[in-house]
Amino acid sequence: MTSLRFDVLGIGNAIVDVISQVEDDFLAQHQLNKGAMTLIDENRSHALLNAMGPRTIISGGSAANTIVGVASFGLKASFIGKVKKDDVGESFSHDIRSMGVHFNTANAIDGPATAKSVILVTPDGERTMNTYLGACQNLTSDDVDSELIQSAGIIYLEGYLWDPPEAKKAFEKAAEIAHNAQRQVALTLSDSFCVDRYRDEFLGLMRSGSLDIIFANQHELKSLYQTSDLDTAIRAIREEGVLAAVTLSEQGSIVITREETHKVPAIPIERLVDTTGAGDLYAAGFLSGLAKGAGLVDCARLGAIAAAEIIQHYGARPQQSLLNLANQNGLTL
Amino acid sequence: MTSLRFDVLGIGNAIVDVISQVEDDFLAQHQLNKGAMTLIDENRSHALLNAMGPRTIISGGSAANTIVGVASFGLKASFIGKVKKDDVGESFSHDIRSMGVHFNTANAIDGPATAKSVILVTPDGERTMNTYLGACQNLTSDDVDSELIQSAGIIYLEGYLWDPPEAKKAFEKAAEIAHNAQRQVALTLSDSFCVDRYRDEFLGLMRSGSLDIIFANQHELKSLYQTSDLDTAIRAIREEGVLAAVTLSEQGSIVITREETHKVPAIPIERLVDTTGAGDLYAAGFLSGLAKGAGLVDCARLGAIAAAEIIQHYGARPQQSLLNLANQNGLTL
Repeated sequence: MTSLRFDVLGIGNAIVDVISQVEDDFLAQHQLNKGAMTLIDENRSHALLNAMGPRTIISGGSAANTIVGVASFGLKASFIGKVKKDDVGESFSHDIRSMGVHFNTANAIDGPATAKSVILVTPDGERTMNTYLGACQNLTSDDVDSELIQSAGIIYLEGYLWDPPEAKKAFEKAAEIAHNAQRQVALTLSDSFCVDRYRDEFLGLMRSGSLDIIFANQHELKSLYQTSDLDTAIRAIREEGVLAAVTLSEQGSIVITREETHKVPAIPIERLVDTTGAGDLYAAGFLSGLAKGAGLVDCARLGAIAAAEIIQHYGARPQQSLLNLANQNGLTL
Repeated sequence: MTSLRFDVLGIGNAIVDVISQVEDDFLAQHQLNKGAMTLIDENRSHALLNAMGPRTIISGGSAANTIVGVASFGLKASFIGKVKKDDVGESFSHDIRSMGVHFNTANAIDGPATAKSVILVTPDGERTMNTYLGACQNLTSDDVDSELIQSAGIIYLEGYLWDPPEAKKAFEKAAEIAHNAQRQVALTLSDSFCVDRYRDEFLGLMRSGSLDIIFANQHELKSLYQTSDLDTAIRAIREEGVLAAVTLSEQGSIVITREETHKVPAIPIERLVDTTGAGDLYAAGFLSGLAKGAGLVDCARLGAIAAAEIIQHYGARPQQSLLNLANQNGLTL
């Protein structure tokens, strides 16, 4: 393989998370959809911020979290996403760059503020996300630099990108450039309600050969095929001819290709604090392994290692070197 | 005891913490004083924020942390401190009020921004604080409401308040009103360098009978009496005729009065993450016990319980109900 400038390039919504602990009552009282990501407007965002408890503010965004994870595994990573030139956007840019990630998407000067996700964590560790997309709506296909896309081995796209209408075009442009350059294109289905909004488009992308790798949790995969039976959904994804990595929470993950199936256990943890970013960091480990030529089982193990780190503290950005954790678990990259 | 509106009222610098992990090299490279609180200007604050790694933003401030801890033990608590009317100040106000703390100090409209402390956490869990005081410099004796002071059983003051010149007058006014109303007045020595700056004033306050309770760690106590021998410092504080609670990190704490000495062990922890707020939360437990009429040993045990919670995660605000933790440890309030 020729040496590429980046191992993985992610495109996603650039979001700062505002996290708070709440009781389950709070979710009921505010009619929130537990475990899901719901899009909200700025007024609703302010109302939730005021009603909830003390805040912890940490950069987030699904693909951005994954890309930071890839960098923490020691790989070369780049991110495309849109923030506004405001304090929150400055913080997002600082945080991703300080992890060694290349990030030079032009800031929005006018228009809505940098995106915030109000994340409510219940005592069971489950997170309920309420996202104000703000400046993410200003990501356009102009932000997708062909040369940058061609300079990365794997392009990673989040399903959430289909929510801001212009970003979807950026997504499609990036996938096309990448494929023409013989790069691998990966998609995370993001959220079962997101799948529900864009099922036909996601299936279409797979079936047109635009996607090589799919990440999903069991709920998203079942939503994709509109079935309540996981085995049915697994049989269906196997037929698509893509590489699929399906996470099963504490049951670990299953890696599926047309020819192979591997079940890989989760890493035991001391205390579940906050599930935010579990899927994002699983993808980080898996993609890092793939980019470095690891076998599929080791890719899934790297995913499990990263997910176990992230769910033991608040926020979806690693607090320890993932490369060190991989090494401690006997894996090299 | 007549029923008072508040069990504990704290006065302190109203600060939001911006926390990052760094290696020890970073401290050396930026000539930072490991383990200490150093005052910095806004330019220096920006320079450190840019140079450090990803940020976690959580409300802080020494006395504010203590008061939030008191509220988490289920007691009635109030706080006086100065923020500016800006986003950071709004976040501070939200966070303390959402814990049930009464906080109605007028916001500064003009002048410097809400205070930020850049907190660098090294792999050993030690924190090095770099504080831009900002709007805290606008706390004046006008912000000290006599009726509010008289409505609280214990007034808790942080030594750091002597740094902003006007705040020191607020401190002195509050101590005088409290004593005239037969309230107890507590002071934390805050930091050994802070003691070095105001040693004579702190000793003067004790010796004039303005203070009833002193909180210090071993370094601060030794600095107060300019000795390298802890036993010498303990003998000296015993002679002052105050109630002193001296924390000794993993060795627990010693409670000292003219008549009694009690050594109380620390609570074992799983993993030391960040020592920020250990002393603040010890004070929260101790004051909560005192306000509820607990014996001195139980006060120290409550302090140890709160300190153990806070050092196992980032930030100096509790993530679990301290009342629940006290109950789990067989203590009621």
